[in-house]
Amino acid sequence: MATSGVSIAEELRTALDGPWRAVRERARALLDDDRLYGDPSLDLKAARARVLEQMRLVATFDWVDSGFRHPDGTPGDAGAVVTALETLAYTDLSLWVKSGVQWGLFGGAVENLGTERHRKYLDELIPLRLLGCFAMTETGHGSDVANLETTATYDPATREFLVHSPTPSARKDYIGGAAEHARMAAVFAQLITGGESKGVHCFLVPIRDEAGGDLPGVTTYDCGYKGGLPGVDNGRIMFDQVRIPRENLLNRYADVAEDGAYSSDIENPSRRFFTTLGTLVRGRVSVGGAAAASARVALSIAVRYAEQRRQFADPDTGQETVLLDYRSHQRRLLPLVARSYALAFAQNDLVRRMHLVQTGQDTDPRAQRALENRAAGLKVAQTRFATAAIQECREACGGAGYLTENRLVTLKADTDVFTTFEGDNVVLTQLVAKDLLTAYADEVRDLDALGWVRFASTMARDVVRERSGVRQMIQRLRDRADDTVDEGDLSRRSLQLQLLADREDYMVRTAAHRLRARAKETGPFEAFNNAQDHILAAGSAHIDRLVLEAFIDGIAGIEDPDARALADTVCDLFVYSTIEQNQAWYIMHRFMSVERAKSVRRGVNELVDRLRPQALTLIEGLGVPEGVLRAAMLD
Amino acid sequence: MATSGVSIAEELRTALDGPWRAVRERARALLDDDRLYGDPSLDLKAARARVLEQMRLVATFDWVDSGFRHPDGTPGDAGAVVTALETLAYTDLSLWVKSGVQWGLFGGAVENLGTERHRKYLDELIPLRLLGCFAMTETGHGSDVANLETTATYDPATREFLVHSPTPSARKDYIGGAAEHARMAAVFAQLITGGESKGVHCFLVPIRDEAGGDLPGVTTYDCGYKGGLPGVDNGRIMFDQVRIPRENLLNRYADVAEDGAYSSDIENPSRRFFTTLGTLVRGRVSVGGAAAASARVALSIAVRYAEQRRQFADPDTGQETVLLDYRSHQRRLLPLVARSYALAFAQNDLVRRMHLVQTGQDTDPRAQRALENRAAGLKVAQTRFATAAIQECREACGGAGYLTENRLVTLKADTDVFTTFEGDNVVLTQLVAKDLLTAYADEVRDLDALGWVRFASTMARDVVRERSGVRQMIQRLRDRADDTVDEGDLSRRSLQLQLLADREDYMVRTAAHRLRARAKETGPFEAFNNAQDHILAAGSAHIDRLVLEAFIDGIAGIEDPDARALADTVCDLFVYSTIEQNQAWYIMHRFMSVERAKSVRRGVNELVDRLRPQALTLIEGLGVPEGVLRAAMLD
Repeated sequence: MATSGVSIAEELRTALDGPWRAVRERARALLDDDRLYGDPSLDLKAARARVLEQMRLVATFDWVDSGFRHPDGTPGDAGAVVTALETLAYTDLSLWVKSGVQWGLFGGAVENLGTERHRKYLDELIPLRLLGCFAMTETGHGSDVANLETTATYDPATREFLVHSPTPSARKDYIGGAAEHARMAAVFAQLITGGESKGVHCFLVPIRDEAGGDLPGVTTYDCGYKGGLPGVDNGRIMFDQVRIPRENLLNRYADVAEDGAYSSDIENPSRRFFTTLGTLVRGRVSVGGAAAASARVALSIAVRYAEQRRQFADPDTGQETVLLDYRSHQRRLLPLVARSYALAFAQNDLVRRMHLVQTGQDTDPRAQRALENRAAGLKVAQTRFATAAIQECREACGGAGYLTENRLVTLKADTDVFTTFEGDNVVLTQLVAKDLLTAYADEVRDLDALGWVRFASTMARDVVRERSGVRQMIQRLRDRADDTVDEGDLSRRSLQLQLLADREDYMVRTAAHRLRARAKETGPFEAFNNAQDHILAAGSAHIDRLVLEAFIDGIAGIEDPDARALADTVCDLFVYSTIEQNQAWYIMHRFMSVERAKSVRRGVNELVDRLRPQALTLIEGLGVPEGVLRAAMLD
Repeated sequence: MATSGVSIAEELRTALDGPWRAVRERARALLDDDRLYGDPSLDLKAARARVLEQMRLVATFDWVDSGFRHPDGTPGDAGAVVTALETLAYTDLSLWVKSGVQWGLFGGAVENLGTERHRKYLDELIPLRLLGCFAMTETGHGSDVANLETTATYDPATREFLVHSPTPSARKDYIGGAAEHARMAAVFAQLITGGESKGVHCFLVPIRDEAGGDLPGVTTYDCGYKGGLPGVDNGRIMFDQVRIPRENLLNRYADVAEDGAYSSDIENPSRRFFTTLGTLVRGRVSVGGAAAASARVALSIAVRYAEQRRQFADPDTGQETVLLDYRSHQRRLLPLVARSYALAFAQNDLVRRMHLVQTGQDTDPRAQRALENRAAGLKVAQTRFATAAIQECREACGGAGYLTENRLVTLKADTDVFTTFEGDNVVLTQLVAKDLLTAYADEVRDLDALGWVRFASTMARDVVRERSGVRQMIQRLRDRADDTVDEGDLSRRSLQLQLLADREDYMVRTAAHRLRARAKETGPFEAFNNAQDHILAAGSAHIDRLVLEAFIDGIAGIEDPDARALADTVCDLFVYSTIEQNQAWYIMHRFMSVERAKSVRRGVNELVDRLRPQALTLIEGLGVPEGVLRAAMLD
């Protein structure tokens, strides 16, 4: 049993490691290094300096170079670099965030929005000779990027742009790196030329001199203490008519000629805007991945602790009971472990899709859009999960869980902002749902809110399901048996997927109906706002279904029958607990009888019972090596 | 409307201020003082020193003296001191915790477990000339206090006790004050005399000399960094045969004579143990109150921010929309505001009951036991609420919410351990449910687990309800109309209370049934463990019902008709959102039709719509003065 447990854990780990298994294996070895962990006793200044040193160490891992386009034009290994950097979440999330800002956001903007004339910056930023920041969010506008207030006005006389913060709310805010280390900012601003605004574009703006002082016209501020991430120097920037060369416009999708003439291959301004933002999808993919990785660390700690900590004697034996033998403790932790498996498979799938698009192997014109949507949805699912799961782990470890030496509180504090940055979760869920409601119709992004509501309310839902391919998957799975939703065996994958897909479909269809009914009576804002809770629920239902599909696909890749059987049980627990969370909906909408709903609840209990003896195997399968856990209470 | 809004807010505040309104009013004036707030830039040592200085300031408020028994024997004003100290949660939770340790736990142990010979310590500890700590929890035993391992063995030769930590897990752990400031510890240990163990008793053990060094045989350790509460010096203590005079036993309920003879007025050892612990109920009352107060601060900040922050233009008007005008934002925050009202009324009721018991005005022998249960239940409800509500507030404020200058992350970090200390929430919920299942039968506490399961499984549920008085209340409320649960008007208070009471009753009855069915087949642990999720749910249902009763009673005390009408709507939202959270249960157990459940969901939307214009009035009614909010983003 013990040997078999180990080999099953290895099989599971291999499956969860996904397409970039070698990268993960190498990372696991590299990360057991004291230099990569945080030190809670450092003050802000020292914590930031330490993280910068850690980045220099990471730069020696050769993870980053290979992720950027090579000088000969061949694309970088996008999947490998995202996977490698994700593992930094096992050690210190400040390091992960600051690395993501430098190489992912700042470097990504230069690479994806810039052209050959900006290549020189990549050569400097990759080895950290040039430290940068990503100045998109402003005090007044975060989610609403299209309405940023910072301006970049072209002056043909000097062939320069003047970057300016016209109001206090135009101040760039929460910008990682802006408080201390960044010398240059990728600034998102309204491009104005010839007196006309051309919408948001990205500009490279030097902000500090070599000595670290603000350059003329630039004023930086320190955001100071935050809920976590002490090693990240978040700051604010105000620009007072700062002059930058014309060439500092990142001109992949639009350019301004010396005389001020504006040109772009993408005529539609809205489409240009979304194309610009779309290239930054890697950030969202990465945030979701790091959130899920953090939750895996927390669960690894909490489950191991629950296997060693005893409290209250069992009267049957006189022995004190191990925490994980309590039903309530199993119910607290094991469904989270199951969801952790589901999300790991979903993240692997997402990274693979991203890699295919970004390396030019997937040339379907709809692939980029679909990728953005999936990345948004999984970012929501994973960051929401991390927030809830780490909190549960902290509480499940009692007083010990509150001590910094056991890491859970730091994981909680550091990941807390993940539900907010790279897209607020509510706004992103809405984005996902809107695209569902309009079946990704290309013209919709260009519509204003009024147009959008009108469009959504006339869509048929069938387009959605057809395109998603879920029907084929259900059909394929169903070959095994002839289930109906009402009577069928709930342990059948086909039926499980059908239940999740039915919920999504119904919600999308009825949200559209609700919009239509309202739009006739009220303005579009009222119509939308009235249905907002419904729209958000539709988005969440969609994400659940995508995650289950990824889980099913992931299991199909496991060859060892024992490991596969265990993964199947974990998948059941994921499905049962997901349905249990939504059981009111299923009953109220007649997708499930009361008796069946009761059997779901019993099913969760049976499944945690069945999985309990394999808890440690499951944790080992999650792939967080013991050497990185570093929780004092685990001896 | 504006004038009326202000006066309605005042009426609500008066109602929520409760019996010790004058205390709250004075506190609100005292707390607008920079010296009482934390400073995130301090290191641990400086943060602890600062909090000690703050305590010296609080000592000048004359809050504490009056809470202790007067030298002439008249009881202190228990309600006033708990209410006053609770307000410290508005400023700095480290200050609140450290004050609670010194005056509440350490002082409370001396007062309630000691006798006249310990009066001298009170005279020293009240004005902070003697700093103490409360050394109950050990590394190996937290919730299971009866099985603490520390021993205090009487030596008649020297008339001393030898206090000793026999194993590493006997180490006192997480003890506030033990790392630096405490000179004396109230130590809970197994009393051994004449070779016989007499169970857990409390002893005063000097641990540090004047210079702050550990006394001989005592070794203290620093728990270091925690998830929050940086100003509290939590530590660990090991005792190596430390000798203390016989008189240092706190001998209110048991004593050891010079010759080692043990005596107690309470013959039953189990009852003696529970009597000892029962005197410490004020701690639980206080934790719940401080948790709810912290949530009020967070909600005051988040709702005010949601009233000023705009994002995305409304296409109907072109104006950017205030966050609180979004349905999703209303649904995030307003049900929490409603629950905050409910819990404030429930806390006032609890403090009043505690005051009557502790000042000898309520002499019903069952009152103490009922108080302990209510305190446990409300501690759970309030700390669980604080954790969820502050988290929601943080997320609802986006990036700004993550900055320490806006306080939400500090409130979250500091209160996070509240679900754990003074009784882990899972363990306490179980305690509440166990007493429900056995209808508070006195003999049950003395039973072992086997006996308990047998007893619980034979109880009829009717005793519970008869005793709780809920039936009378429903009857009284129902006089207004002839509702039936199925068809009646859900806005009727009688029906709402009936729904919550039905859920509680049904769960208690069926939990007993489930225990009985299982106990025949398996051992008591298996029987209990199999029903644990059910038992916990019964406890939670009970707490919800108590809170609603307190809300109803609280509203009855509001005279102004407009304020009362508003409070009635808030109560409706509390009930509807509570039922919505449990709607699956109501449908599955045929207490509610599907149609009615749908109307509950619509009802929540209608209620948040209706309350939205009054949001600021409601926040002002919560009684957290603007001067203590101190969030930089609120201008």
